[in-house]
Amino acid sequence: MLSIGIDIGGMSIKIGLVDENGKIVDIAREKIADSFEKVLAGIEKQIDFLLSKNNITIDKVKGIGIGCPGMLSKDGIVEVFPNLGWKNAPLVPLLKDRYKTEVRISNDANVATLAEAYYGVAKDYNDVVMFTLGTGVGGGVVIDKKLFEGGDKKGTELGHTTLILGGVPCKCGRRGCLESYVSATALIRQTKAAMNKDPKSKMWDFVGGDIEKVDGRTAFECSKTGDKTAIKVINKFVAYLSDGIMNMLNIFRPQAFIIGGGISGQGDYLIDKVKKYCKKYHYGYENAPKAEIFAAKLGNDAGIIGAAALLNQ
Amino acid sequence: MLSIGIDIGGMSIKIGLVDENGKIVDIAREKIADSFEKVLAGIEKQIDFLLSKNNITIDKVKGIGIGCPGMLSKDGIVEVFPNLGWKNAPLVPLLKDRYKTEVRISNDANVATLAEAYYGVAKDYNDVVMFTLGTGVGGGVVIDKKLFEGGDKKGTELGHTTLILGGVPCKCGRRGCLESYVSATALIRQTKAAMNKDPKSKMWDFVGGDIEKVDGRTAFECSKTGDKTAIKVINKFVAYLSDGIMNMLNIFRPQAFIIGGGISGQGDYLIDKVKKYCKKYHYGYENAPKAEIFAAKLGNDAGIIGAAALLNQ
Repeated sequence: MLSIGIDIGGMSIKIGLVDENGKIVDIAREKIADSFEKVLAGIEKQIDFLLSKNNITIDKVKGIGIGCPGMLSKDGIVEVFPNLGWKNAPLVPLLKDRYKTEVRISNDANVATLAEAYYGVAKDYNDVVMFTLGTGVGGGVVIDKKLFEGGDKKGTELGHTTLILGGVPCKCGRRGCLESYVSATALIRQTKAAMNKDPKSKMWDFVGGDIEKVDGRTAFECSKTGDKTAIKVINKFVAYLSDGIMNMLNIFRPQAFIIGGGISGQGDYLIDKVKKYCKKYHYGYENAPKAEIFAAKLGNDAGIIGAAALLNQ
Repeated sequence: MLSIGIDIGGMSIKIGLVDENGKIVDIAREKIADSFEKVLAGIEKQIDFLLSKNNITIDKVKGIGIGCPGMLSKDGIVEVFPNLGWKNAPLVPLLKDRYKTEVRISNDANVATLAEAYYGVAKDYNDVVMFTLGTGVGGGVVIDKKLFEGGDKKGTELGHTTLILGGVPCKCGRRGCLESYVSATALIRQTKAAMNKDPKSKMWDFVGGDIEKVDGRTAFECSKTGDKTAIKVINKFVAYLSDGIMNMLNIFRPQAFIIGGGISGQGDYLIDKVKKYCKKYHYGYENAPKAEIFAAKLGNDAGIIGAAALLNQ
């Protein structure tokens, strides 16, 4: 049976028909609009289009799953959508009303974790924890193949746990959160600071002399060519990230830990370093179960696939 | 129906008959021995004594629950018992064999949390997280009235999550763990360091000039009488503790958070400060559900009561 998976992002909305094996059968895209009403109309238009194009009716799909950033209520209200300024947008109730089908929603990091735990790199594991490293740091926890969202579905904000008390200010209002050290935003900040201290770093050539062109790849790529300053940035980043991962291993003892988001594109180059660090410092290493550590593999499709997988829950 | 609750500690073993309301009906004590065989024989002797004294047979009790520090396997083997040097002691299998009844085990912090969540300060809440502040820092998580122990029952090591990356060495092998800042051991260390820097602190009088007499109450009691150095120690301790609590709120979003262990005897004096700090820095405060923060109330009985409560799970 097909499901509809909707991935609402800061720039666009992707709507997919997903089969029972997590394969995207068809996909439609819609630009994000600023008002909730326009976004809702766009979503409905694309759902109708996909259904009609594939010659099926809504009663023949399992339901609609949605991945969405921001603060969500357990009744499917988008209480706060970052950037767009939505407040208390009744997304799930209105879609339920319109389509008379099961509609579920969860945040983007949760949905990405679910996708990897069902159909991705961790499909053979029951207990899975994931960090999504992007503008911020999202967290997802799957326990016995079920998404754990915390009380009131507002938990697993794994990026907002302390790495350095009183450290770098975090947009959540606290200081020293993991997000402030291992997000892509943080890596860019760390890279720029290191470049400013070392005018001879090859990272300057990599960005054509324009520091504003630094992105999450700059230090990684230059570390591979032996630039000492880049290597230092990456080693420090790996220490931050690995320490954050070990915290989650000590809390959840998952069988698999996944690193997602753009930075996970570094694949084994990143994962091998993280594994080495964790092996050295793993709490209770001798007796504690060892988690496998993976880079996410579903990439940009994880949003749609994971949203559809909400219907398995 | 009565249950048997066994609280194995570093100094003694307490064995209780507990009724369905979490009330201890009768209790027996046994000194801890160094060998596992002697401890097991002591436990069996006291169980038999309690049953006979109360004129009931083992088939009339719900089962045997055990709270025990150390590293436990999911099959009830005590893999490592700190201090006593046990290795792979088959506690649960041997008791099952002897008594032909349900036998369950979990670590001391888990059992304390369960006691408070069923019969103590958090009995009206479904989702509860607890820190036990003692020699180390234990953690317990109850989700929907069920103990969550993590994969392989080896998780919720909440004390072994980072507060200050690269900070104070922790006995787990990492640095900067919460345990290294908010255990009673840590508070004593912080108190001594502050006293050594301030020979005029009233804390010196409090301990009769002997720094070796400093304990977890020294800075608390002297802060109440206005000693500035003691106040500084406590304010810092509250910041450490509150930050650690907020991490757990962001991960689990429990309805209730409990502070247990000897330090929780400070009651409202401590809790009010923690609440104030959390209110100021609580992640997503506007929309996030607010957890109630409590001091544990079952004290030393929590071990027996919580062990018996394992039979409710």
